[in-house]
Amino acid sequence: MLEQLKQAVLEANLELPVRGLVTYTWGNASGIDREKGLIAIKPSGVDYDVMKAEDMVLIDLTGKVVEGDLKPSSDAPTHVALYNAFPDIGGVCHTHSRWATSFAQAGMGIPAYGTTHADYFYGEIPCTREMTRAEIESAYEANTGVVIIETFKELNPNYIPAVLVKNHAPFTWGKNAAEAVHNSVVLEEVAMMAIQCKQLNPAVTAMPQVLLDKHFLRKHGAGAYYGQKK
Amino acid sequence: MLEQLKQAVLEANLELPVRGLVTYTWGNASGIDREKGLIAIKPSGVDYDVMKAEDMVLIDLTGKVVEGDLKPSSDAPTHVALYNAFPDIGGVCHTHSRWATSFAQAGMGIPAYGTTHADYFYGEIPCTREMTRAEIESAYEANTGVVIIETFKELNPNYIPAVLVKNHAPFTWGKNAAEAVHNSVVLEEVAMMAIQCKQLNPAVTAMPQVLLDKHFLRKHGAGAYYGQKK
Amino acid sequence: MLEQLKQAVLEANLELPVRGLVTYTWGNASGIDREKGLIAIKPSGVDYDVMKAEDMVLIDLTGKVVEGDLKPSSDAPTHVALYNAFPDIGGVCHTHSRWATSFAQAGMGIPAYGTTHADYFYGEIPCTREMTRAEIESAYEANTGVVIIETFKELNPNYIPAVLVKNHAPFTWGKNAAEAVHNSVVLEEVAMMAIQCKQLNPAVTAMPQVLLDKHFLRKHGAGAYYGQKK
Amino acid sequence: MLEQLKQAVLEANLELPVRGLVTYTWGNASGIDREKGLIAIKPSGVDYDVMKAEDMVLIDLTGKVVEGDLKPSSDAPTHVALYNAFPDIGGVCHTHSRWATSFAQAGMGIPAYGTTHADYFYGEIPCTREMTRAEIESAYEANTGVVIIETFKELNPNYIPAVLVKNHAPFTWGKNAAEAVHNSVVLEEVAMMAIQCKQLNPAVTAMPQVLLDKHFLRKHGAGAYYGQKK
Repeated sequence: MLEQLKQAVLEANLELPVRGLVTYTWGNASGIDREKGLIAIKPSGVDYDVMKAEDMVLIDLTGKVVEGDLKPSSDAPTHVALYNAFPDIGGVCHTHSRWATSFAQAGMGIPAYGTTHADYFYGEIPCTREMTRAEIESAYEANTGVVIIETFKELNPNYIPAVLVKNHAPFTWGKNAAEAVHNSVVLEEVAMMAIQCKQLNPAVTAMPQVLLDKHFLRKHGAGAYYGQKK
Repeated sequence: MLEQLKQAVLEANLELPVRGLVTYTWGNASGIDREKGLIAIKPSGVDYDVMKAEDMVLIDLTGKVVEGDLKPSSDAPTHVALYNAFPDIGGVCHTHSRWATSFAQAGMGIPAYGTTHADYFYGEIPCTREMTRAEIESAYEANTGVVIIETFKELNPNYIPAVLVKNHAPFTWGKNAAEAVHNSVVLEEVAMMAIQCKQLNPAVTAMPQVLLDKHFLRKHGAGAYYGQKK
Repeated sequence: MLEQLKQAVLEANLELPVRGLVTYTWGNASGIDREKGLIAIKPSGVDYDVMKAEDMVLIDLTGKVVEGDLKPSSDAPTHVALYNAFPDIGGVCHTHSRWATSFAQAGMGIPAYGTTHADYFYGEIPCTREMTRAEIESAYEANTGVVIIETFKELNPNYIPAVLVKNHAPFTWGKNAAEAVHNSVVLEEVAMMAIQCKQLNPAVTAMPQVLLDKHFLRKHGAGAYYGQKK
Repeated sequence: MLEQLKQAVLEANLELPVRGLVTYTWGNASGIDREKGLIAIKPSGVDYDVMKAEDMVLIDLTGKVVEGDLKPSSDAPTHVALYNAFPDIGGVCHTHSRWATSFAQAGMGIPAYGTTHADYFYGEIPCTREMTRAEIESAYEANTGVVIIETFKELNPNYIPAVLVKNHAPFTWGKNAAEAVHNSVVLEEVAMMAIQCKQLNPAVTAMPQVLLDKHFLRKHGAGAYYGQKK
């Protein structure tokens, strides 16, 4: 069932080590078929070099396994929470990529310092609040989704497709699994440059709003003019 | 038309991912035929691994497309502005390379700290002023050229073939597309070492002028003695 | 004798350059057959690209060579000390990997800043005290083991399978040579991110204990639910 | 003439890009035949991927070209000065490797912070004084040798086979060209870790002398016991 989705999700996952975003099995990407309400997600703890499309686990929007012999990624409940809360997204990706995770560990969001950021993220990439003891001790992975969603109460997830979970690592999303992974790659670049930028100029502030608007909106939304006409 | 130029521009563009200067399609190089007044430039948003010489777009010195089915890079108006203002240059390159872009985001030029810098850039690589709301909201890419040119009012672009656009990223140039890319590679090395140098010694100042003169002039100008006789 | 162990130890050693953890011959991994009380260890100063399984040297738990034409790694006495003191471990690895060694040189342990750390190390990775003149001047390598063991007097080596030896570099261990190397890879990631995290937020403190518990215990111990059922 | 030496010098030079120490043609290694008093050195500005053994230029100890159609590296006079001043060395290497050059630009030596350093360099790797206007304006490359030699007036070049030339970059040496390159590789590792170490602990001091003695002398000198018996 949903062989094409599984193949796409496999390919998105395989892109993670190629891009240097994951060590061992520390990352996972998923994609959803919105009509069927089914998510294909990487199995837990399986090596990237032996993973096949049929290993992708199908789960529904309550997190129940619908098809597959393997256990889904232990982060599956976080993916499920995001698909339920953010109706426009079609893919989710989670890594412990080095530079972005450094921000998550520092408990800091990544301000928009330049146009590389602005081309993909319409403002600061936020860091969640600390999770409570109760949230951690029961349904931890689902509650990771809860704090992400809370962080986006006043933010548009379609405009800022990434978050840093405090003391943990980033999650990104997009219109499908490939775009979610793409956004993880960009996030890592942006995080690396933000750290260097702060080192160079500790007093640096976010870029002017007008430049943020210009760059984000020339690639996204009705007036976009970047790339080739589709 | 101008197949040789297109091939050279293609090769210059393909060098960018090989050198680790671009992620996805975030970079572009162009070259000009000064006699015909025509520029060959990378198309917008096309993947490097499928790009062919015939995909290079020919534009004139007003930015009008003269040949090619694809849209030129969205940064084409910046390239055009530079070709018009700097009559000796034959190639332009733009990347979001990590270390140089960190300086651009910090709003700081790169002082000449050592001979690696001095071998290519005759003094500080400047950072432009912030663009105004008016400059950003209309003809943004052409105005990016305007602030670069303004930055070089008192500088010789043949002696300092690079600039950092504030909150954006570097542009470099050279006698052709290959040299423009070459200068982007060097800029990235120089930027990386300048950041580390400042970390080690926050009080560091630019190198002595006499050493800057020595290194730049042994590779450039009438008294050059570096490399093999041509 | 113990050909399978030698092969496993060879493979663990060969993983070190693949993972970018060693330059030249600066690293060594070993494994033990607990029933026979014999350790297979890398020979001293042999290039990785010509090393064969039969080059692995067999030594006993007093450090005496039992089989092999080559001298064992000069760090062999440290390995021996660890096998004697930590009865549950089956492999030991030593590298001078860049980021972890930077902490060792700074004389600082690596606090648990995030879940990447917590997935493998149950608390701060400690740095040993400085060795005394007497310890350095006689039986230096064995005494390196002594200060490591002293550092773990109040710590569980099965829960924190890594240490930084002051002014030297890390040692890691695990249930066999492969896991010891795996832990060296993870340590390096964790060290890199800890440095960046401290740069970003000099006031950063260790992660909440409850989150450390959650992550370590979901992968280790009786209640583990990460990965596939064995 | 001296085909074996030329081949060895070629191979040493080719190792430089493999090890990531040079960009383009920014590096050079040489080796000497002490009996004949002849040095084989890389030609100036030739690409590594087309360089052949017969391109190596033979020069004598006054710097005069004895054999070869190409111009020798512009740094040849520095190599010559070192061979004349340091009678035990058989190879010299110069790069602009990123981390070591950062120290040179900062005008700082690299203190011995740990055993990686101590295994190769018996104390701080010094940085030269600033060169005078007169030294730069006439016979610059030979005078680069002069300030290096001055820096080693009280130091043993066989025990500290590396130097940082202020505002320029490192030179290393060894018993032949391969060992000189090897020392450049080690220097780069040591420099990288020294920068991180200082970031982590700005108050860090050099390692204890007794540990420096132990590590240097177990690999060098009469009591060495590292590696296999020759």
